Amino acid sequence: MAHLTAGVEYGIHCLLWLALERDTSLSSRDLADLQGVSPSFVAKLFPKLEKAGIVVASNGLRGGYRLARSAARITLLDVVDAIEGPKPLFDCQEIRGRCAVFDGALPRWATNGVCAIHAAMLRAEQAMRESLAATTLADIADTVGRKAPASFSQAVTAWVGGRTDARSARRGTRGRG
Amino acid sequence: MAHLTAGVEYGIHCLLWLALERDTSLSSRDLADLQGVSPSFVAKLFPKLEKAGIVVASNGLRGGYRLARSAARITLLDVVDAIEGPKPLFDCQEIRGRCAVFDGALPRWATNGVCAIHAAMLRAEQAMRESLAATTLADIADTVGRKAPASFSQAVTAWVGGRTDARSARRGTRGRG
Repeated sequence: MAHLTAGVEYGIHCLLWLALERDTSLSSRDLADLQGVSPSFVAKLFPKLEKAGIVVASNGLRGGYRLARSAARITLLDVVDAIEGPKPLFDCQEIRGRCAVFDGALPRWATNGVCAIHAAMLRAEQAMRESLAATTLADIADTVGRKAPASFSQAVTAWVGGRTDARSARRGTRGRG
Repeated sequence: MAHLTAGVEYGIHCLLWLALERDTSLSSRDLADLQGVSPSFVAKLFPKLEKAGIVVASNGLRGGYRLARSAARITLLDVVDAIEGPKPLFDCQEIRGRCAVFDGALPRWATNGVCAIHAAMLRAEQAMRESLAATTLADIADTVGRKAPASFSQAVTAWVGGRTDARSARRGTRGRG
């Protein structure tokens, strides 16, 4: 098992589609079906992304989710923090203060300042966070865009349009029924 | 909950005591009692540290664990890898190949090279690993050593000696019984 959950992977992929289709709102169901992943799992991610201010939701037939700001201003760190919550690399339990030699009379020096192990872990965590903050959704979308032929984004737009039209048709049928 | 388990914290603390008491072997029970932590939990860490070549075990009345090499040649990354095993930051499930638009006919470009999300995660993981590899047990022992009075290491050595002597006395009593 990895340190980051599958939710981070699914969340970033979903947001990349929203970056590609920036003029259209997409439902979490559309995003799940487009990617061939579990709709119920994807549905649970979006309240977190909305709460973090990464996406905005709209209602109605053409409603769904859109990016709340430019993809160039959404970093991988923003998405990881939104999905995973405040999860540190290391949880210091201050073991240093429990040493049997102190025999219950903890000297001041023993727990003065941040534990040296914790400090080293905080440096490693910061290095990881800085690296995640250095990559935006736009950077990743550019990399994918350089690989994909122009026909691909047209095919995606057509697929998304088909979904919205099908929804409209179903509502119309129900309205007439 | 943190990304790294409590085993990493306990493991590093134990190894620091072995670095301090480098002329003496210590049992996992001694190390647990010295730190006021669970002996059964600490006992489970040492086979991992031994397998990774960080400690060596010896038998007998004065047996136990010692560092397998100088504390200056054991990094925090060595300990994290030994305790946590091969746990990546991110587990790429290659979602990019499942896009509904491909309709089962996956084009070559779609999964060519490493996924751009995965590549960014690998960079973040590498930044974290490099930071952990830059700190050795000797660095941490030096930081602690600058804070602790000389009497502290003498008190620890006396505590450890007392444990070994008590073990010898018990064996002697049993031998006479």
